[in-house]
Amino acid sequence: MKASIITVGDEILIGQITDTNSAWLAAQLNLLGVQIRKMISVGDEAASIYSALEECMSQDVLVVMTGGLGPTKDDITKKVIADFLGLQMSFSQESWTHIQQFFRQLGRTATEAHYNQCFMPEGVRLLDNKMGTAPGMWFEKGNAILVSLPGVPYEMKSITANQLLPRLQHTLHTPVIEHRTLLTVGMGESLIAEKLAAFEDSLPNNIKLAYLPNLARVRLRLSAVGEDRQMLRQELEKKVEDIRQLLGDLVYGEGEEELAQKVGEMLKDRKITLATAESCTGGYVSHLITGIAGSSDYYHGSIITYSNELKMKLLGVKKETLDEFGAVSEQTVKEMVTGLLQAIPVGIGISVSGIAGPGGGSAEKPVGTIWMAISDGKIIQTQKLSLGKDRLINIKYAGIHAVNMIRKFLLAQ
Amino acid sequence: MKASIITVGDEILIGQITDTNSAWLAAQLNLLGVQIRKMISVGDEAASIYSALEECMSQDVLVVMTGGLGPTKDDITKKVIADFLGLQMSFSQESWTHIQQFFRQLGRTATEAHYNQCFMPEGVRLLDNKMGTAPGMWFEKGNAILVSLPGVPYEMKSITANQLLPRLQHTLHTPVIEHRTLLTVGMGESLIAEKLAAFEDSLPNNIKLAYLPNLARVRLRLSAVGEDRQMLRQELEKKVEDIRQLLGDLVYGEGEEELAQKVGEMLKDRKITLATAESCTGGYVSHLITGIAGSSDYYHGSIITYSNELKMKLLGVKKETLDEFGAVSEQTVKEMVTGLLQAIPVGIGISVSGIAGPGGGSAEKPVGTIWMAISDGKIIQTQKLSLGKDRLINIKYAGIHAVNMIRKFLLAQ
Repeated sequence: MKASIITVGDEILIGQITDTNSAWLAAQLNLLGVQIRKMISVGDEAASIYSALEECMSQDVLVVMTGGLGPTKDDITKKVIADFLGLQMSFSQESWTHIQQFFRQLGRTATEAHYNQCFMPEGVRLLDNKMGTAPGMWFEKGNAILVSLPGVPYEMKSITANQLLPRLQHTLHTPVIEHRTLLTVGMGESLIAEKLAAFEDSLPNNIKLAYLPNLARVRLRLSAVGEDRQMLRQELEKKVEDIRQLLGDLVYGEGEEELAQKVGEMLKDRKITLATAESCTGGYVSHLITGIAGSSDYYHGSIITYSNELKMKLLGVKKETLDEFGAVSEQTVKEMVTGLLQAIPVGIGISVSGIAGPGGGSAEKPVGTIWMAISDGKIIQTQKLSLGKDRLINIKYAGIHAVNMIRKFLLAQ
Repeated sequence: MKASIITVGDEILIGQITDTNSAWLAAQLNLLGVQIRKMISVGDEAASIYSALEECMSQDVLVVMTGGLGPTKDDITKKVIADFLGLQMSFSQESWTHIQQFFRQLGRTATEAHYNQCFMPEGVRLLDNKMGTAPGMWFEKGNAILVSLPGVPYEMKSITANQLLPRLQHTLHTPVIEHRTLLTVGMGESLIAEKLAAFEDSLPNNIKLAYLPNLARVRLRLSAVGEDRQMLRQELEKKVEDIRQLLGDLVYGEGEEELAQKVGEMLKDRKITLATAESCTGGYVSHLITGIAGSSDYYHGSIITYSNELKMKLLGVKKETLDEFGAVSEQTVKEMVTGLLQAIPVGIGISVSGIAGPGGGSAEKPVGTIWMAISDGKIIQTQKLSLGKDRLINIKYAGIHAVNMIRKFLLAQ
């Protein structure tokens, strides 16, 4: 059961707009068991739209187009569709009535451009648009369905959810697909792949594993195709358990959960409060933690000491420590976290000091050298990272690692 | 001069990832005068990749692929390219040396998967990847160029900027295009467009103005097409001056300059030091400032007081002030910045307190209410923002406004 998505608009091809419609539509169609074979973006130009339609309608049971339905001049999608399907354009009273009602509600009047917008390929089935003037359009040709939706995301989403998906569910007879996504942090894609090599080889043909890497994190997505949703869910549940066994605490969660959200829940459950002391990350650890709604329940604050003077003044780091070992050292981050817990009395404190770059490195301590310490007032644990040369990536990578260090500290308790 | 972009990855077709690479690449290629004819996304499947290659290489002078170059098993792009171009796969010592060096710098060792990753279509010209292990690849067939880049956005961007664009500029013969981009902050797109309406109407046919809005900022890009680069530059210089006249201090810089970079330069020039006191922005203001290389020259640190207790303890905010006016009030941010300058003696301090949301709002102080104060120890200025409902957008918007408040404070001196 294959489908394709065609996005129409010059603004996409010049890179002024990122096409987010296709990903959203794909996720919705997947949940119905419709697999996307291909996504295509073309400009507001008849020949390009026509040839994309030709290619997709000959291969897929469903083609969904977005864009090119509004009242402005560059909107030619409808005419190309009429041409492709061999239909005449005719005036749709249904659409015109809808537009007039829509404007009446806003206390405005429809224009001539809106009137002209009501000329459509004859025989179209309209998909009602509650958010705007251009309705969605549904056509059938042979065994294939062609759907055209406006490009404005909230209009497209409203029509899809309220009109398109129910009608598709009713019309198509689809196979069943189930997905599960495990979230990992702290190990690169290739090392994880080594740990999972035998597992991957043992997967049956109907189950696939995909690696989706991002900074310091890798998402592992299992997809299963079959006929019985309940059975697929059970199969996937077993595979998820296998991966959890193999990867242990590298897995921090499932689905869409943020690492900082997971850590926030752990802190809230255990009623433990948190504070941070940052140097090279300059507030990024704190930003990750406070990006989560409700973080004020467990997060008290941070002392960011970018200068050595402040490390001494606000965190009580000793001058001798800075002189002997430097600001980027195990000794300094230990004293930072100890001083932090005195300045901000919380359950757990974490400190970070490093060389984000591009300057400030030496042979002994190259750019990317970052020390962290975590403490609950009794135990102090430290960690050293050796990262790369890019300042912002170092800051972000270290920030994620610091949040993960909190998670591991909590897990060990 | 037409090009196409092919994105490879099952994760895109199931809608788990939004393809942002294509829009970014399109914008970059447009600046070189290369127009994108089509964007295509296909899955990790040989036949789909092959047919997309076939279609694009027969129509375009340039085809850029992203995705499918990492060390894991679902990465088959290279083999399909070899197959399509009729090339053998052979081991690239150059790539292996790069990978080993890359890992040596990180204090780690390359794995067997990385070794296997070095088998590539023979005759490839490698595009050096400073951010990861998979290099970009450049091939030529007849008059067409085929480029394959890794899918991880920061790796793809680094290779494109440092390797691909200079090589394309050298290889392709494009018409002469000149661009100038003015950076504005603090006013929305439509209000700026009103101020520039007459200017825009007066532009000659060969010069275009584009509005590129982003959170709290709008970039204004002037593009001129012609034959004589020197003449185009002179024409654009005049237009840039016109815009600067019309917009005044809304324009903070030109080109790629970050707002925080501009403010950093102003502070450095005037030998003024800076510290911040944050509540709702939770470290984001500090992160913006310390994201700039060399910021330790002027930035001393921050006190992030997420709780009221810390506002009193670390910044000396009075209990009566919090009781009477609340943590989100002009009075509180004034006391925060005064206390900040005592805790961290610097030239300029700035404080922020607000309701980021989604919870915590009231009829009197809805979500999105944010107060800021700036002071040099003599003058205190305050500002109130009334933002929207989205937590992360509120945090980021307020962060940018805080940095802009520093800029305007410096300009007024």
